[in-house]
Amino acid sequence: MARIAIYPGSFDPLTNGHVSIIERGLRIFDKIIVAIAVNIRKEPLFTVDEREEFIRTEFADERVEIDTFSGLLVDYAASRNVRVILRGLRAVSDFEYELQMANMNRKLDDSIDTVFMMTEESDFYVSSSLVKEVASFGGKVEGVVPEHVEQKLVEKFADKK
Amino acid sequence: MARIAIYPGSFDPLTNGHVSIIERGLRIFDKIIVAIAVNIRKEPLFTVDEREEFIRTEFADERVEIDTFSGLLVDYAASRNVRVILRGLRAVSDFEYELQMANMNRKLDDSIDTVFMMTEESDFYVSSSLVKEVASFGGKVEGVVPEHVEQKLVEKFADKK
Amino acid sequence: MARIAIYPGSFDPLTNGHVSIIERGLRIFDKIIVAIAVNIRKEPLFTVDEREEFIRTEFADERVEIDTFSGLLVDYAASRNVRVILRGLRAVSDFEYELQMANMNRKLDDSIDTVFMMTEESDFYVSSSLVKEVASFGGKVEGVVPEHVEQKLVEKFADKK
Amino acid sequence: MARIAIYPGSFDPLTNGHVSIIERGLRIFDKIIVAIAVNIRKEPLFTVDEREEFIRTEFADERVEIDTFSGLLVDYAASRNVRVILRGLRAVSDFEYELQMANMNRKLDDSIDTVFMMTEESDFYVSSSLVKEVASFGGKVEGVVPEHVEQKLVEKFADKK
Amino acid sequence: MARIAIYPGSFDPLTNGHVSIIERGLRIFDKIIVAIAVNIRKEPLFTVDEREEFIRTEFADERVEIDTFSGLLVDYAASRNVRVILRGLRAVSDFEYELQMANMNRKLDDSIDTVFMMTEESDFYVSSSLVKEVASFGGKVEGVVPEHVEQKLVEKFADKK
Amino acid sequence: MARIAIYPGSFDPLTNGHVSIIERGLRIFDKIIVAIAVNIRKEPLFTVDEREEFIRTEFADERVEIDTFSGLLVDYAASRNVRVILRGLRAVSDFEYELQMANMNRKLDDSIDTVFMMTEESDFYVSSSLVKEVASFGGKVEGVVPEHVEQKLVEKFADKK
Repeated sequence: MARIAIYPGSFDPLTNGHVSIIERGLRIFDKIIVAIAVNIRKEPLFTVDEREEFIRTEFADERVEIDTFSGLLVDYAASRNVRVILRGLRAVSDFEYELQMANMNRKLDDSIDTVFMMTEESDFYVSSSLVKEVASFGGKVEGVVPEHVEQKLVEKFADKK
Repeated sequence: MARIAIYPGSFDPLTNGHVSIIERGLRIFDKIIVAIAVNIRKEPLFTVDEREEFIRTEFADERVEIDTFSGLLVDYAASRNVRVILRGLRAVSDFEYELQMANMNRKLDDSIDTVFMMTEESDFYVSSSLVKEVASFGGKVEGVVPEHVEQKLVEKFADKK
Repeated sequence: MARIAIYPGSFDPLTNGHVSIIERGLRIFDKIIVAIAVNIRKEPLFTVDEREEFIRTEFADERVEIDTFSGLLVDYAASRNVRVILRGLRAVSDFEYELQMANMNRKLDDSIDTVFMMTEESDFYVSSSLVKEVASFGGKVEGVVPEHVEQKLVEKFADKK
Repeated sequence: MARIAIYPGSFDPLTNGHVSIIERGLRIFDKIIVAIAVNIRKEPLFTVDEREEFIRTEFADERVEIDTFSGLLVDYAASRNVRVILRGLRAVSDFEYELQMANMNRKLDDSIDTVFMMTEESDFYVSSSLVKEVASFGGKVEGVVPEHVEQKLVEKFADKK
Repeated sequence: MARIAIYPGSFDPLTNGHVSIIERGLRIFDKIIVAIAVNIRKEPLFTVDEREEFIRTEFADERVEIDTFSGLLVDYAASRNVRVILRGLRAVSDFEYELQMANMNRKLDDSIDTVFMMTEESDFYVSSSLVKEVASFGGKVEGVVPEHVEQKLVEKFADKK
Repeated sequence: MARIAIYPGSFDPLTNGHVSIIERGLRIFDKIIVAIAVNIRKEPLFTVDEREEFIRTEFADERVEIDTFSGLLVDYAASRNVRVILRGLRAVSDFEYELQMANMNRKLDDSIDTVFMMTEESDFYVSSSLVKEVASFGGKVEGVVPEHVEQKLVEKFADKK
């Protein structure tokens, strides 16, 4: 039986931290479904299509499937018949939120569980929101996001001016 | 290829927190090697044999192998040809230590990675050392450790008097 | 002299975590004033009347008084001639905020003090905002809020569709 | 019915942080039993008699009773027929330990509960162990412990030389 | 060569916590540039001119320069030819954010580094946003902000009514 | 006037984390006194002479002075007529301890203050005690300590066998 995990997130944009979790997750799981959360309440910087493109460009590996979801993560997981959620952990503040969510999700559907991997030390200060803030002021984000993402960030903020 | 994880610890004694991690780990991995750390510097309450017995009594499942190790965990994992370490996370203080260890272990051998599962809320205040302290004063630890472990705890501290 | 405590909050909606703190608080205090904070800047899901109804339905006990307040909590406490504020503590992130507020409140009026009770482990991942998020997506929140609250949550989000 | 709380600790020695918790606790409870934990495994700096003397010197108030206990705190509380434990909270690291203990104690005897008060900001860096370390090197601890305790600390470490 | 540090912030308004960091920073650096962050996305309570006035009123010292900046802090620091950023640390939640920012800033320009000073215990619960919230409800903030700031806060909220 | 800071620690042994703090501290201070704490209660792995040698080998820079001290750090600082203590910060658990120490030290001698620098992300999981533990089991610590320290670690543990 194939071991599949869902790796959910906004990926707005994909960072090297995400890339590392996916790569390392592929050593443990046969397949990873990168599930882009479509949240109608939050205004993203990149469209869902752009975000899918980022992930596809980075991972040609057919073991990486890209999908979108809205609503409850556990419902999405059940609809995909997947029992494992994969999340990265970076900081103490992440930890408490993730602990709360993992326990709530298990309460909502106890056939689904969450596993965590620690962000590599070189990426631990990298978050999508900080990346956007830095890029919006013209800061260089090389080494923090994949090169093709960096380019799109530059273009996006050039457009906005 | 079978997905195997090593679940290392002192298990002095096995608690319901450990049991939950092993049970839930078995949904993700084909096999879990519960690896008892033999630390010559720490004086355990239970012998290695007693600790093995606790785990074996709890898990008749042939997918649970029990082993012992000393020295570096990554060396043990390499010797067993296993690439995944499984750990439970309970509290913020755990988190920082585990983050440090996971990164050090990846530095020592980057073919080995650590995955974490959150302790269930009903077990989050349970630690082997607290269990021993409570039992040493005659406190009831039912519901905190498996019944057979509880019995042995009572006997052990009766002997000590 | 009766020992009275004010238990302030938004209660939008009442959760089992709140219920537990009130019940346990009643063992320590003769009377608890559950004080609903009316915050004109935040858009609540339930009206003040609905929130009062939740608490009244749950607590027939005449030792539970329900009131509303706006402005500074210490001013409200002084106006009620109550010297003790009761708060629940759940997580590290709660802790720092509560520590800051307790010290600020004591600075504002040092005749008023705050006492804390730890949330029970079964409720520690429960927050009003998470409950609303889950319910808004049709997730089941039984066991997380009282049954009558659960029903209203379902109705509320049905209305919104 | 009198509202009584047990305030347990080592009080080796009494600090201004302890004094503040007792004083503020007396506004909430009719009586506080300051219960000195007699731990045969830890070597204290001051004898139980000396520690009792510190508390008695500070609190002539007949609402402060001084007692000693060993074994489980919940057993001691039950033997005294007291249902409330009072503890001070100072730091995040305290918080996690106290959360764990409060939940374990409620598990051991759910008729007993713990309430917490936040240490005043001027005392938050004060701990008995830091006080002893500083005093052992001849550092001045005025304003950190009561004056009579300070004097004894000076004498104690003069004796040790 | 003069040792200069930039102390960036919103200072909306200046609190005693800020004042303490500047005073103590002046013992370590020859000059401190207090750099008011002009953030077009956030609606401040006080205009930049008012905030400058607060700092100038408090610090007649010619070693305190007041300036404004927008965009990336590291770009501003480079434009001023300053290599050191000074920040206050107050709580665990501050710490993680500051750790992230300090590392991101060093990545953006590794010739610039950040040094931290711990907020004094008497100020640790003081933040500009809490001060504004308290003042908006008519709470007294004496001893928390300089007297001249307190007066302006009172006026500002009187205007708003 | 020269700006001097004391960088105190056990340095048992010197790690790359220490090296980074000293290097970066030299950009801010004219001179750094690396002060080895001689603690008669703790059994070090390396003698004071060996630890001095590690630092001297790493820093030929005459702006780095190496010294030893025992007793209170503030007394040592006063005896050296230095007003600034430099410390590295790595984790939340560090943070709370350092906050407590910095405030206690300021209480003991308010002419002395502590400044902190954040450990670089690549070193954040590196501590002397973890390095010793890993080396004791034959683990490779290259990239975690300077090469000459690594060699001595290997020799030291070879001797111990």
